Amino acid sequence: MSELGVTPRSKNYSDWYNELVVKADLADHSAVRGCMVIKPHGYAIWELMQRGLDDMFKATGHVNAYFPLFVPKSFLEREAEHVEGFAKECAVVTHHRLKANPDGSGLIPDPEAKLEEELIIRPTSETVIWNTYTKWIQSYRDLPILINQWANVVRWEMRTRLFLRTAEFLWQEGHTAHATYDEAEAEAMQMLEVYRTFAEDFMAVPVLTGLKSEGEKFAGADHTYCIEALVQDKRAIQAGTSHHLGQNFAKAFGTQFTSAEGKLEYVYATSWGVSTRLVGTMIMAHSDDKGLVAPPRLAPVQVAIVPMGKDPEVRARTYEAADKIAAELRAARVYDTPIRVKVDKREKESPGFKYNDWELHGACLRIELGPRDLDAGTAVVAMRDGGEKAFVPLGELVSHITAALPALQDRLYQKALEFREASTQRVDTWAEFEALFKADEAPGFVVAHWDGTEETEEKITELTKATIRCIPLKPLQPSDAEPGACILTGKPSQQRVVFAKAY
Amino acid sequence: MSELGVTPRSKNYSDWYNELVVKADLADHSAVRGCMVIKPHGYAIWELMQRGLDDMFKATGHVNAYFPLFVPKSFLEREAEHVEGFAKECAVVTHHRLKANPDGSGLIPDPEAKLEEELIIRPTSETVIWNTYTKWIQSYRDLPILINQWANVVRWEMRTRLFLRTAEFLWQEGHTAHATYDEAEAEAMQMLEVYRTFAEDFMAVPVLTGLKSEGEKFAGADHTYCIEALVQDKRAIQAGTSHHLGQNFAKAFGTQFTSAEGKLEYVYATSWGVSTRLVGTMIMAHSDDKGLVAPPRLAPVQVAIVPMGKDPEVRARTYEAADKIAAELRAARVYDTPIRVKVDKREKESPGFKYNDWELHGACLRIELGPRDLDAGTAVVAMRDGGEKAFVPLGELVSHITAALPALQDRLYQKALEFREASTQRVDTWAEFEALFKADEAPGFVVAHWDGTEETEEKITELTKATIRCIPLKPLQPSDAEPGACILTGKPSQQRVVFAKAY
Repeated sequence: MSELGVTPRSKNYSDWYNELVVKADLADHSAVRGCMVIKPHGYAIWELMQRGLDDMFKATGHVNAYFPLFVPKSFLEREAEHVEGFAKECAVVTHHRLKANPDGSGLIPDPEAKLEEELIIRPTSETVIWNTYTKWIQSYRDLPILINQWANVVRWEMRTRLFLRTAEFLWQEGHTAHATYDEAEAEAMQMLEVYRTFAEDFMAVPVLTGLKSEGEKFAGADHTYCIEALVQDKRAIQAGTSHHLGQNFAKAFGTQFTSAEGKLEYVYATSWGVSTRLVGTMIMAHSDDKGLVAPPRLAPVQVAIVPMGKDPEVRARTYEAADKIAAELRAARVYDTPIRVKVDKREKESPGFKYNDWELHGACLRIELGPRDLDAGTAVVAMRDGGEKAFVPLGELVSHITAALPALQDRLYQKALEFREASTQRVDTWAEFEALFKADEAPGFVVAHWDGTEETEEKITELTKATIRCIPLKPLQPSDAEPGACILTGKPSQQRVVFAKAY
Repeated sequence: MSELGVTPRSKNYSDWYNELVVKADLADHSAVRGCMVIKPHGYAIWELMQRGLDDMFKATGHVNAYFPLFVPKSFLEREAEHVEGFAKECAVVTHHRLKANPDGSGLIPDPEAKLEEELIIRPTSETVIWNTYTKWIQSYRDLPILINQWANVVRWEMRTRLFLRTAEFLWQEGHTAHATYDEAEAEAMQMLEVYRTFAEDFMAVPVLTGLKSEGEKFAGADHTYCIEALVQDKRAIQAGTSHHLGQNFAKAFGTQFTSAEGKLEYVYATSWGVSTRLVGTMIMAHSDDKGLVAPPRLAPVQVAIVPMGKDPEVRARTYEAADKIAAELRAARVYDTPIRVKVDKREKESPGFKYNDWELHGACLRIELGPRDLDAGTAVVAMRDGGEKAFVPLGELVSHITAALPALQDRLYQKALEFREASTQRVDTWAEFEALFKADEAPGFVVAHWDGTEETEEKITELTKATIRCIPLKPLQPSDAEPGACILTGKPSQQRVVFAKAY
């Protein structure tokens, strides 16, 4: 294993991921328990995700706003399920000043600056936002409100993993207010579809869309929709959720409006969010033992150009050619965005080192440019996902690459889709189900019947660590929609649901 | 005063500002002391600011990253001046869980979930970032590091004002690391120039660039540069700062590197930031008694189209024409960005109400479109800053408006510049100085001699509430650079400095 190397996936998938994230300069651990530093290379992925999602939110009529970081403790107490879900792992602010410790040993919270009411760092913003919406909404003419915010949130997780589960994370949270149940339902479904489209078209990650069981839904929701991805170790990742909150928060915060008919009614709500967890999902879905594999739409570097030559005169020639190619590529557009190019002029590193380094950092393709290539009027193009190197005439590089990047995007999606299909199975007996999940490795998506009760769900999870990932909105195959017998209890089941071990 | 109206500036400038911010839907007070809700219309201004600044940061070689919200208490203690500056007004996290109060009265911090070390919500991120950079920097080849982050920060301010001073605010903070003093100095000056350019070209607010006095510099800096604006009540606003931190944080966190010559040296640092305070500065600089005046580069709505007609058939005609004009304008570009247009089809409001409402909300110009205008093949264009209404042939609207918007941008800048120049005076006697600042109203920029000591600075502030806004980098007029006698003590002074009452 070279200094660039990471533990192979086959040896230890968890080590592979953790090492890759750090070595590919995506994120780093911080001095604060469970909090990460998102490094520039990783943050660039998040910025591309933000741009893509934000455009989709605005195209569906949403606007951005910003609500406070702090949630008064009493707000959390108002919605009964919500407080159950979030009070157990939150950061509590109790003082607003430090002072010198009289014993001279540093700083202590100043007892005279104790807050009258503790503040919680938002784990999510429903309570703060609904307290505000109550002021803003009087009449049906104030509806709908279609607001999103980009923010940081904190949930005091005990076991963390870079990007996938951190105490502080970055996300967006949409919070909408509607006059009717049907309108809120349409909104929740629309945003689920936005998330599905983003996961599949930008991240090249196929996802199942479905309903969460009562046991897995958001604390305070009427019902929760989700997108569920499957990554290379056959574990599921909940990649995004869209909640129909019913009138729960409106009732907790007294948010009423006068309808067109002059009646006083409670407002219907949705909320929906995706987070920096998407970065982890993308990494886990596509990357390999050489490092990051990033789909072109989200790759911080799409093209790495490595001009060669030890001799200064040779180098001057290849550098000049590399800069010219870079300029041509940057002037070209893929997915309506200038191509993201780096020219690697590090003089102390060998070409071989640079090839490995750009594979580690997930450049979608590499252009090798040596003096003999220039003499022949060609460059070598190597795709990140392997295959034959291509010898491309210099004059055709731009057209070659503007086609190669979308082709790579499609290949990554197809590969992930085939993997998911090969990792999805139907099981009809408890013995088989239990055996699948008792193995050290996760079995992928297991599509099986369930009697629909929370009790059975809990029992299955207790026995196997499998959770119900979702009740699919449309059957994965037609027979999934047929009734059957619960895998554990044998009681009647309306349709198959999807089980997996999950991150 | 109509329902859209705000208190006139001449009557009470402070009320005018506070009412304008709320009535123009820019921001709202929240339930949490000192924290604001940034409403979509106000957040759109911040998004435009972010886009403009981020482009300039990237064009000067910076990349974005993200560091944790939490600062361990011990980090704050490491840099002596820094802790003095920030320990007194910070949010302190002491627990990581709430639990039900045994007396049944709600939630309390769980005593079993008390943190071993308290965490501070970042008031600024130098300590967290330098703790990280110490891990990242070994050799001169790791330098420079040129990182920016967009984040929220908290300073527990006692007296707050929407946008200008809030407990939580949004900002960007650049943190760079360099091998030499000169390189760090060049960086600090470069970013000051970026801020000056942004303030003048985007915000249309002329600013002074200067050095802060020792008493006003950033806690932990070697020296601080700033941009200082003057708003309509002749008070100054510190709109941005760029700090040369010397080796202070490197020494506090042990950040050393091996130089090209093989010597172990401490790293030099800069940090620089602007915040949502810029939104308040922009509002105060240009707005009037009718509401928000926003420079076109930062106006959420550049063109408001008001199609008229009570009769449904007439309305169908004007609506169709309005939509067509809107589409043409959105396809055109001003400042390399599609023109931001709204068509106002509210049927229950009169044209007059809509005119006032768009003036309140700061649309740069308004197109009035009635049936007689359509018959004549023209539209009425009214600029937000007044003057004659123009009757513009429909076919010329796009070219008229693509010229009118930059012209408005320039007019706003010129007007603000003239105001600042008319509000700047030179004073040579203490009696005159004291009289100017004793008045109820602020006198603007007062350019006077000072003996350069912190003691005199404090005395002047104590006696007059005037503060030294900056020691200008270049004299406002040549004679300002000549030596003289301190306004208070009569001791020798090297150059004139700028005093003002400030927000």
